[in-house]
Amino acid sequence: MNALIKKEKNQRLAKLQQIIIQSQADACIISTSVNQFYLLDFIFDGYIFIQPEGDPILFVKRPNNIQGENVIYIRKPEQIPDFLRQLNISLPKRLMLENDVLSFSTVTRLQTALEMPDLMNVSGKMRSLRSIKSEYELNQMRECAKIHAHVYEQIPRIYRKEMTDIEFQIELEREMRLAGSAGTFRTFGENMDIFMGSILTGDNAQSASPFDFALGGQGASPLLPIGANGTKLTPGTTLMVDMAGDYRPWMSDITRAFAIGTVPEIAHKAHRISIEICNAIADTTKAGTPCADLYFLAENMVKEAGLEEYFMGTEQQAKFVGHGVGLEINEPPVLAPRSKEILQSGMAIAVEPKFVLPGIGAVGIENTYVVTDNGLEKITICEEGLTALQ
Amino acid sequence: MNALIKKEKNQRLAKLQQIIIQSQADACIISTSVNQFYLLDFIFDGYIFIQPEGDPILFVKRPNNIQGENVIYIRKPEQIPDFLRQLNISLPKRLMLENDVLSFSTVTRLQTALEMPDLMNVSGKMRSLRSIKSEYELNQMRECAKIHAHVYEQIPRIYRKEMTDIEFQIELEREMRLAGSAGTFRTFGENMDIFMGSILTGDNAQSASPFDFALGGQGASPLLPIGANGTKLTPGTTLMVDMAGDYRPWMSDITRAFAIGTVPEIAHKAHRISIEICNAIADTTKAGTPCADLYFLAENMVKEAGLEEYFMGTEQQAKFVGHGVGLEINEPPVLAPRSKEILQSGMAIAVEPKFVLPGIGAVGIENTYVVTDNGLEKITICEEGLTALQ
Repeated sequence: MNALIKKEKNQRLAKLQQIIIQSQADACIISTSVNQFYLLDFIFDGYIFIQPEGDPILFVKRPNNIQGENVIYIRKPEQIPDFLRQLNISLPKRLMLENDVLSFSTVTRLQTALEMPDLMNVSGKMRSLRSIKSEYELNQMRECAKIHAHVYEQIPRIYRKEMTDIEFQIELEREMRLAGSAGTFRTFGENMDIFMGSILTGDNAQSASPFDFALGGQGASPLLPIGANGTKLTPGTTLMVDMAGDYRPWMSDITRAFAIGTVPEIAHKAHRISIEICNAIADTTKAGTPCADLYFLAENMVKEAGLEEYFMGTEQQAKFVGHGVGLEINEPPVLAPRSKEILQSGMAIAVEPKFVLPGIGAVGIENTYVVTDNGLEKITICEEGLTALQ
Repeated sequence: MNALIKKEKNQRLAKLQQIIIQSQADACIISTSVNQFYLLDFIFDGYIFIQPEGDPILFVKRPNNIQGENVIYIRKPEQIPDFLRQLNISLPKRLMLENDVLSFSTVTRLQTALEMPDLMNVSGKMRSLRSIKSEYELNQMRECAKIHAHVYEQIPRIYRKEMTDIEFQIELEREMRLAGSAGTFRTFGENMDIFMGSILTGDNAQSASPFDFALGGQGASPLLPIGANGTKLTPGTTLMVDMAGDYRPWMSDITRAFAIGTVPEIAHKAHRISIEICNAIADTTKAGTPCADLYFLAENMVKEAGLEEYFMGTEQQAKFVGHGVGLEINEPPVLAPRSKEILQSGMAIAVEPKFVLPGIGAVGIENTYVVTDNGLEKITICEEGLTALQ
C-alpha cells in the first residue's frame, strides 16, 4: 500500500481513538461503508472493532478474500464475544456505534450479541471528524472539481433545441460516466434520495420536494420526486445543472445555470447577485467565521436586491445557503441561520445561493471552497456567468 | 385519483390493519419511502399514523403542498402527541415501526416523542405483505418486463469491438434511461449497494464482493466494489448483463449472457444448463411449492452436469438461486436451501441459476415469474440463448 494512504489511515484512526477516550468508551464498532472506507481505504460486510489503542480488528462476513493479521471471519455478530475472549479482550461496557445510520434492528442485535453494553452514538462525531479534511483529501477534491468543471464545459455542446430536461440529463449523465463518475453518490440522512444530481428548468424548479436538498422539482418517478420531470427546454427559461461531482471518493459540488435563448433581465440580475454573494462570502470568510454569518451575509444581499421571495425556492424555501462536502455530499457544517458551528481550517464547503423565478426557472451558482486560516480557496474553477444555450 | 389505485390502496391499508390487529398493537407508523408509496401512491418526509381501523393520519414535514383531511403539518415528531390528543386519540402503548430500515436514532427519538410505547417491528410483516402482489401490481411488472426486454434487444447494436465493460455499461445505461429507467433502484438491507445493475465480463465475474447479490465483480470505485471494473470485452469471453428493470415502480429482473466472438464449449453447456434449470423450475413450481425445493432442483441439475464448482460464483458462491421482486429488487421469498417459505399465488420471483467459468466469465439467465395456483407465468420474454456479439 501507498505510504501516504497508510499515514492518512493512521491519522484518522488516531483521531477516532481520541474520540473513544474522550467519550470514556471502551470500544467503537464501525460498519457503514463511508466510515469503513475512511478508516481502511476499502469496504466490506462486517465490523471494524476499535479500542482506545492498538490496531483495529476486522470481523468480516464478506468478501472472503480479505487478508491481514487482524482479520477474523464470522458468519454473524453473535460470534464476536468468543473471539474477543480468545484475544484476551474484555467485552466493552460502553460501546460506540453508528446509531444515526445503522437500523434499529442492527443496533439492538449488535448490543445483544455483545452482552448489552451501554450504547453511545459515534455517527455525529465521525461526521465532525471527517469534516476536517487532510491535504490528501483536499487534493482529491481539487482533482474531482477539475473533472467536474470539464464535464460542465460540455453542456453547450450537449444541448439541443426542443429536448426535454430528462433527455438533456441523460446525455450529461453519459458524459459524467465517461469522465469517471461512480454514479452512486452518497448522502447522509433518511431524507436525501437523488439520482446523479438535479436538472431543473422552468416552473418545475418551483415544485416542492420531500427531500432536504436546496431545490426541489417534481421528478420523473413517484418514488423519486426530485429534479427533472420531462419539461421541454424552452426559450425564455433557464436550465440549472447541479449534478454530482463523484469522480473521486472525496467529492466536489458545482451548480451552473444557463439561459435558453434570451431570458428576462430579472434572471440576469438574480444570477449576478448569486455570484456576488459567493464572492462576498469568499472575501470575508476564513477559519473562525461562524457558519451562520455566511447565511446572514447572503440573506442581507438578497434583501438589498429585493429578491427575498425567490431565494432558495418560492413555494418552499430552503433555510440554508450551503453545506460541507466530502465522502458524503452533505457533511457538516451547515450554513444556516441557526447553525452554532464555526468554520475550521481544512473544512470544505459548498456555497449555493440560488433563486427560483416564476415563469423562468432557477438561477445562481454553487462553488466548493476549502476553508483556510487566511480565507477561502475556490476549487471549482468554471465559467460562472449565465451562459446562453443556442 | 384513479378508482383502481384507490381500491388498491384501500386493500393494502386493510391488510396492514389486519396485521396491527393480529399483532395486538395500538398503531403503526410508516415513514420509509417504499412503504409510504405502497400505502399512499406518493412519498413525503414525515409519518403515516395507522390505527387498527379508520383512515391514516399523515404527519407531514415536507413537501408543504400535500392536501387532504387527514394531513397535519409538523416540524418534528415531538409534536405528534399533542395533535393526537386534540383528535381524542390515545397515545399507542404498543407501536409498530419499521425497525429494519429506520436508524436506531430515528426509532428511539420517535419512541421518546410518543412517551415510550413498547416497540414492535413491522418491517418484515410489510415485506411479507408486499410479496403477494395484486393483479394491478403484476400488470406493472409485466409492463416493466416488456420495456426491460426491449432494452436488452438493443445490446448487440450497442456492442463495439474493443470497448470496456464500463463503456458498454454506460451506453446501456443511456438506453435504459431513454426507455424510462428511474435510475435509482431500490434494495432492502444494509448490504446491497449497486448502481443501475451489474455488467460482468471475463475473470472480473470471479471477484468476491462485500454485497449480497448473486455475483460480485471488483467495481470501478473502492466505495462501490461490485460489477464492471474496466475489463476490455475480449473475444473468447462472455458478457453478463443484469441491469435494473425499474421502468415501473414494480420492477422486473432479467439477466442475459452474450458470447464475445467464439467461446469454449463449456460456456455453451453451462448456459444451456441454466436455461434448463429455469425451464424445469417453471414446469414443476406453483403456489404451495416450498422455496427450498427450487434451490435443490437447481443444485441437483448442476451436480448432474458436473458444474458445482462454477455455480453462483467460484471463489465466493452465493447460496441462493433466486428471490422475490417488487418495489424492491430483493423481496421475500428467498430461494435458498434453508428457506422455510412456501410459494404463494401472487408472488413474483426472479430465478437466476448462474455459472462463473474461470478464464471465460459468467453465463446463465435470469427470468422473472409470477406464481399462480397452476404454475409459473414467465413475464420476461426475451431471447435466452448465448447470443454472439460480433
